[in-house]
This record gives sequence, C-alpha cells and structure tokens, in this order.
Amino acid sequence: MTTFETFCSRASELDAVDPLAHLVERFVPNPELIYLDGNSLGRLPKATVSLMEDMVLHQWGDRLIRSWNEHWIELPQKIAAKIARLVGAGEDEIFLGDSTSVNLFKLAYGVLRYNNGRKLIISDEFNFPSDLYVLQGLAESLGQGHELRILPGIDGIHPDLPLLEQNVNQQTALVCLSHVTFRSAYLYDMAAINSLAQKAGTQIIWDLSHAVGSVEVNLKETGAQLAVGCTYKYLNGGPGAPAFLYVSREFQQQLFSPIWAWFGHANPFEFSQHYEPRKDVWKYAAGTPPILSIAAIEPGLDLLLESGMQSVRQKSLSLSGLFLEAYRQFLEPLGFSLASPENPRYRGSHVSLRHSEGYRICQALIHPMDGVKPIIPDFRNPDLIRFGFAPLYNTHTEVVTTIGRLADIVNHKIYLHFDKTRAAVT
Amino acid sequence: MTTFETFCSRASELDAVDPLAHLVERFVPNPELIYLDGNSLGRLPKATVSLMEDMVLHQWGDRLIRSWNEHWIELPQKIAAKIARLVGAGEDEIFLGDSTSVNLFKLAYGVLRYNNGRKLIISDEFNFPSDLYVLQGLAESLGQGHELRILPGIDGIHPDLPLLEQNVNQQTALVCLSHVTFRSAYLYDMAAINSLAQKAGTQIIWDLSHAVGSVEVNLKETGAQLAVGCTYKYLNGGPGAPAFLYVSREFQQQLFSPIWAWFGHANPFEFSQHYEPRKDVWKYAAGTPPILSIAAIEPGLDLLLESGMQSVRQKSLSLSGLFLEAYRQFLEPLGFSLASPENPRYRGSHVSLRHSEGYRICQALIHPMDGVKPIIPDFRNPDLIRFGFAPLYNTHTEVVTTIGRLADIVNHKIYLHFDKTRAAVT
Repeated sequence: MTTFETFCSRASELDAVDPLAHLVERFVPNPELIYLDGNSLGRLPKATVSLMEDMVLHQWGDRLIRSWNEHWIELPQKIAAKIARLVGAGEDEIFLGDSTSVNLFKLAYGVLRYNNGRKLIISDEFNFPSDLYVLQGLAESLGQGHELRILPGIDGIHPDLPLLEQNVNQQTALVCLSHVTFRSAYLYDMAAINSLAQKAGTQIIWDLSHAVGSVEVNLKETGAQLAVGCTYKYLNGGPGAPAFLYVSREFQQQLFSPIWAWFGHANPFEFSQHYEPRKDVWKYAAGTPPILSIAAIEPGLDLLLESGMQSVRQKSLSLSGLFLEAYRQFLEPLGFSLASPENPRYRGSHVSLRHSEGYRICQALIHPMDGVKPIIPDFRNPDLIRFGFAPLYNTHTEVVTTIGRLADIVNHKIYLHFDKTRAAVT
Repeated sequence: MTTFETFCSRASELDAVDPLAHLVERFVPNPELIYLDGNSLGRLPKATVSLMEDMVLHQWGDRLIRSWNEHWIELPQKIAAKIARLVGAGEDEIFLGDSTSVNLFKLAYGVLRYNNGRKLIISDEFNFPSDLYVLQGLAESLGQGHELRILPGIDGIHPDLPLLEQNVNQQTALVCLSHVTFRSAYLYDMAAINSLAQKAGTQIIWDLSHAVGSVEVNLKETGAQLAVGCTYKYLNGGPGAPAFLYVSREFQQQLFSPIWAWFGHANPFEFSQHYEPRKDVWKYAAGTPPILSIAAIEPGLDLLLESGMQSVRQKSLSLSGLFLEAYRQFLEPLGFSLASPENPRYRGSHVSLRHSEGYRICQALIHPMDGVKPIIPDFRNPDLIRFGFAPLYNTHTEVVTTIGRLADIVNHKIYLHFDKTRAAVT
C-alpha cells in the first residue's frame, strides 16, 4: 500500500526528470486551473498570440489583398506538410482545410463510388457519432442497398476484433474507425487492421482526431491509404480549427472527389469555365480557406515536431500510467470503474472513469467550493468522466492532485452540493 | 467639357455631405494607399482587432473548453441572424459555416436529388468559375444524363435574357446565377428571374458573394428560395471567412442535405448513434465550425446594419456614377473601354474597364514610382481592371484621384516601365 504522499513525491520526481517539462512555458499560462480537456480543445501556445496579432493587424489590416500572394496562397500547404511529418505521411499526401466531417464525406464518397458493387459500410460503436452520421447520410444518398453496420464492442472499452475481422470481407466497401476512440481511448493496431482490409480488398478511412499529436501514427509504414483528423485537440490549433485529410500517393489519382471547386483546380486563377482537378491531394480543396483559423494551427504543430512524437507518447503513457496506478488504490474502492484499456499498448492519451455520480463529481471538480484550483476534465453521458493528458503541458503532479481531489469529493460527499441537471455541452 | 479640377471639387463636395463618411474611421487606417479591392477582400474594422484579441487571449486562452458554453455554441446563429437582416431573410433562414462552394454543393445536391427527372442545370459565363465547377462535379457525380449548360452573354457585360428565359423551362432542374457578376458587376433583377423560374417549376440558387453588403438584396420579397454567399468581400469578414446559405422556411423540410454531421444533429451532445437532422436551416451545419474565422465576421456586419443597405447602395451608385462620368471624359479617349453596365439599375458596386495594356496599367497603379499613393484595384485576365467601391470606406475623392492617375499612366506611358509577366494571383 503506497501512501498518497508517496504518490505525490513520485509525481514530483517524474516531473523533475521530464524531458518535455519546459514546454509548458511555451503556452499562455493558466495558473488558476488544472486543465485535463486538451483532448477536446488544446491550450493556447504563446507563439499563436503574436502570430494572430500579425495575421489580423499586418497581414489582413495593412497588406490586405496583397497578402494572398505574400502569405496565404501557400499557407495551407506549408502547415499540411508539418502535419504530414507528425503522422508519417508524405508532404504531398495531406490536405488541410474544411472540417473533419466534410473531409470524411469527400473520401467516403470517393470510395463508395468505385467499390465494384460492394454496398456494406462498417464502423463501430466507438467511432465519433459525427462520422457515423456522415456515413449514414452517404448510405441514404447512394441508396441501392448501401448499408452502414455499426459493430458493438465487447465491454464498452474494447472492440470485438473477431467480429470486426468477420465483417471486413468481400462484401465490405468501406471501413471507418477512430484510431483512438473518443470515449474509452482504445487505440487500434493500425497495421493489423490495414492488413485485414487489404486482404479483403476493402478501404479503410482512419479518423485520427484523438490520435494525432498524442500517439505515434505512421500512415505509410502501416499501409494506411486514407485518413482524416482534426487539429483542435492535441494539436492545439484553436476552436474548430480546420481539419486535414490523407490520401496515399497511389490512391490520389483514382479516387473521385465529389466537391469540385476553385481551390482544387489545377490553375484556379485562370478562371477557366471548365474544371481540371489538381493531380495531387489538393484536389480536395474546395472554396477559399478560412485563413485566420488555418494560420492558428501552425504554432502547436511546431511544438510537437520539436518534441518528437516518441517523447510525446512516452510522457503520455507516463501520465496515464501513474493515473491508473493511483486510481486502483484510491478511486476503485470509492465506486469508480475504469472505462479505458489497462494495457498501455491499446490506450491513447486520455483515461475515462465511470461513476454513478459522474456528472456531479465532474461539476465538483470544475467548481470547487474550498478555494482550490478548478480541475477541468470532460463529461459524457451518462456517467463517464474523461481525463485528457496532453503531454506538452500536463504534469504528473496534476495527475496525482486530480486523483486526490476525486477521492475527497466522494469521501466527503462534496458532489451532493451540485445539481443533477445537465448543461447542453461540457 | 468639365475640367479635372471641377471633378475634384465635386468629389470634395460629395464627400462633405456623404452621410456615411464618418464610417471610414471605424476601420483600421490605411493612409498610405487607395484601396479599391474591397470586392475581393474587405478592410479590417477596428472593432475586429479588439474582438480577435479577446477571442484568442480570453475566450480560447483563459476560458478554454468553457467558451463553448459561454461564447461559441450560439455564435454562428447570432451572426447568421445579422446576415439575415442584410439580405431580407428570416433569422431562421440563414446558416453560417463552411465555404461558398461547399454550401452550393449542399444546396444543389438537394435540388438535383428531387427534381422529378429533370436533368438540365443552367448557369452562365458570368457566374463564378468555382460555382460552375461545383455544378460540373455534381453533373458528373449524378450521371444519368445530368448536364450543365453555361449560357453565353451578349457583350461580355450583359446576359442574354431571352436566351435565359428560353433555357428556364420544363426540362430545367436548377439555375445558378451570381446576383452581381464578378467580372462586369451586372446586377440581375432577382424578382424577374425568380418569377421566370417559378413559372417553369425550376429552382434557382443565387450566389450573393458580390451582392451582399453592396446592393439591396431582399430574398423574401423577391420570392427567392435558395442562396449562398461569402463574407470576406463587402462584409469585411476577413480572409476566407466562412460563407452562408439561405433556404426559405417552406423549403427547409423538403430539401435533402447530403452531408450529415454532428452540428446539424437535433441533439448533437447526446452523441446518439443515429442521425436526426435539425428541423431548421441549421441541418446544413456539418463539422465543428472554425470559431476564430467565424467570430471575425460580426463587426463588419454591424457597420452595414448601422448604415442601412439603402444608404450603402446610394453611396455605391454615387461613387460608381462619378467614376463613369469621369471615365467617359478622361479615359475613353485613351483606349479604355467600359466592361460594366452603364445603367445603374443593373450595376453592382464595382466598375470594370478594359485596356489592351490593362495588366501593366494595373501594375503602375499598385507600384507608383513617383511617391504618390499606391492604388489597389484588381486585374483579371486578359485585360480587365476591376475597381471596387466599398461604400463604408471609399470616397469620391479616391474615385477622382484614380481616374487622374489612370490618365497619367497612359498619357505619360508610365506603364511601359512594367513587365508584362503576370503573377499567379492579383
């Protein structure tokens, strides 16, 4: 039995030798709280503040239309090339722009259009609902027997891999999975699933939204052909920052893109009446990109590239490993249960706990009544609290403090002071 | 024969009594240039500077995920309601988000899906190439005889209205036109064309990108059912700011939206596996909106609403009317020709001139060698210079100065100092 003080000391020691510890100073400080929701919206890099001031005052305000030539026309490509380095893709294989949902629509439409009569779309209960909606919409649009099958998992945490294998077969047109699932943080073995799909002649679209910037992703090495992902979580790109998509070089020519528009044209400024798509992944560009939101993505990427994804992943597992160890000792006896994989090999960068009083416990963390720092995780119905560990700015001490606070809230029934009524968003 | 000095005096007098003259002070000053490209990228409102600082430092940096509840979740609706007031639509008839091209895709797909076997899509040579590409892509996607017919105009300036009438018939599924055309600034009579379409049982999608914020648009009164438009031109929303779409109340239920995603879900934060669209125009929302770029749209709208579109239109015609009058006297004899409608009723807020040396004349305006202020219009191949008059910040004096400079550049052959080689974008 390790005492809580021992955990605190260990956390301090781990923080003292953490090679990424200095990076927290590269973010605008939030000294008044412990932020464990970087998996929903990443923190603000200091470099983004001066960049946005320059974007608004100089690039827009002073240079006006001239900035399209001076700064903006190549900006999405420049940033996409950095995302490519993070996910093990070629610089010419990542498009940046539009939302994750619109990008998934573009890729899934292309796959379903040329699927040699296959009609079955496979996803699972762990995928983002928004991804499921996009696929449902496509099945409805295409009609003619197209069907989305949403596979159940085995325990709310792990997918049923034999069931998945069985469903990736000669009838399957498309598989769409979250590389790291948003509830349990289950981390799919991308290479294994890609190889399964390849054998069946099926395409997979990976949603990297919870994976990019938190786990090592190597699209080329694992044989991935298609992916999408967002930039506002572990990439720290800002609220609703535009998303990216990945199409492997070999697939770029054959895959049809449904939305033809001027930024995807081979010569957009010739204003020809006839569409001629670019030959690379930028044919997926459509309308004029939202430059302010695009620009804000770059500083967060620079921090991750500077750190290296191997160090980021190591620290992520060190944080979540310590959390799990302390959870077993201090929280499991209080009615909490683990809703994330134990095995670090299959765990992304957040840990989810269930508790029958999860909502009120979460409120007590966010709105402490005793002068301590608020702790911000996030809550998902009906009883799930997600603790996101962002390796660039979270510390082991924050992890242990959170465990201590959770134990206090339950031991002293502090959650009873909060209302059961739920806000629309948390 | 009026002397140039007389024009200058008239311009000063018009500026002195201009009821919108004070508004230029609500923009970040650009005292070193005359900016006549507000039809490509509008200037920066002062209020946007402090707003963006607050968005970045306070809303993102300090409040982090809490800002979704505190600031962001209703922000697109709040801004869309202001756009609605500008274009004569109901507050529940405008969606804000995605690009103009993606929004056109969504609306056109919906129309073509339920067109009772009609296959013909009509547009014209005056429409944005990007709109033509979206429609071409849809014709290609849908196949089965769908065809885009691009109608020629009669003189590069005016559409061939009898030809249009002839093509809006029982075979026509969809018409898509720019309300103000981007080259000549021809302004369609929206009510007349809507009534034409209604008789033929055809749907029209209006692209308002060059119209919104520069001419009076009244979607309800003219019987328009569908429209899209951008926010970075006369609305001064910032580079690539997200676009809007309009669907009349009666059409919202019947029109199918092809991209189903969580922001269009009736209860997005229930994270249900099954899509249930919102019953209003916000079913066209898809992924998470780019909040920084969305927020920047609001201050420009406030300036237009404060001014009122009637005053804005009056000033616009006063500026372009003066420009045309001076053009006839000083520029027509120098080889310029008019590429915009003479009749103010059919003219938007820019005036286009042709000249065989148009490109080099434009370069000479932008890069003066004699210490005078640069003048920034924009150039379109092969010989077109567009002069955009933004009523919120352009003055009659700027108009007359521009005429004088153009005359000088040709009279003194100043353009010969410039290279004929063209940049990719202007």
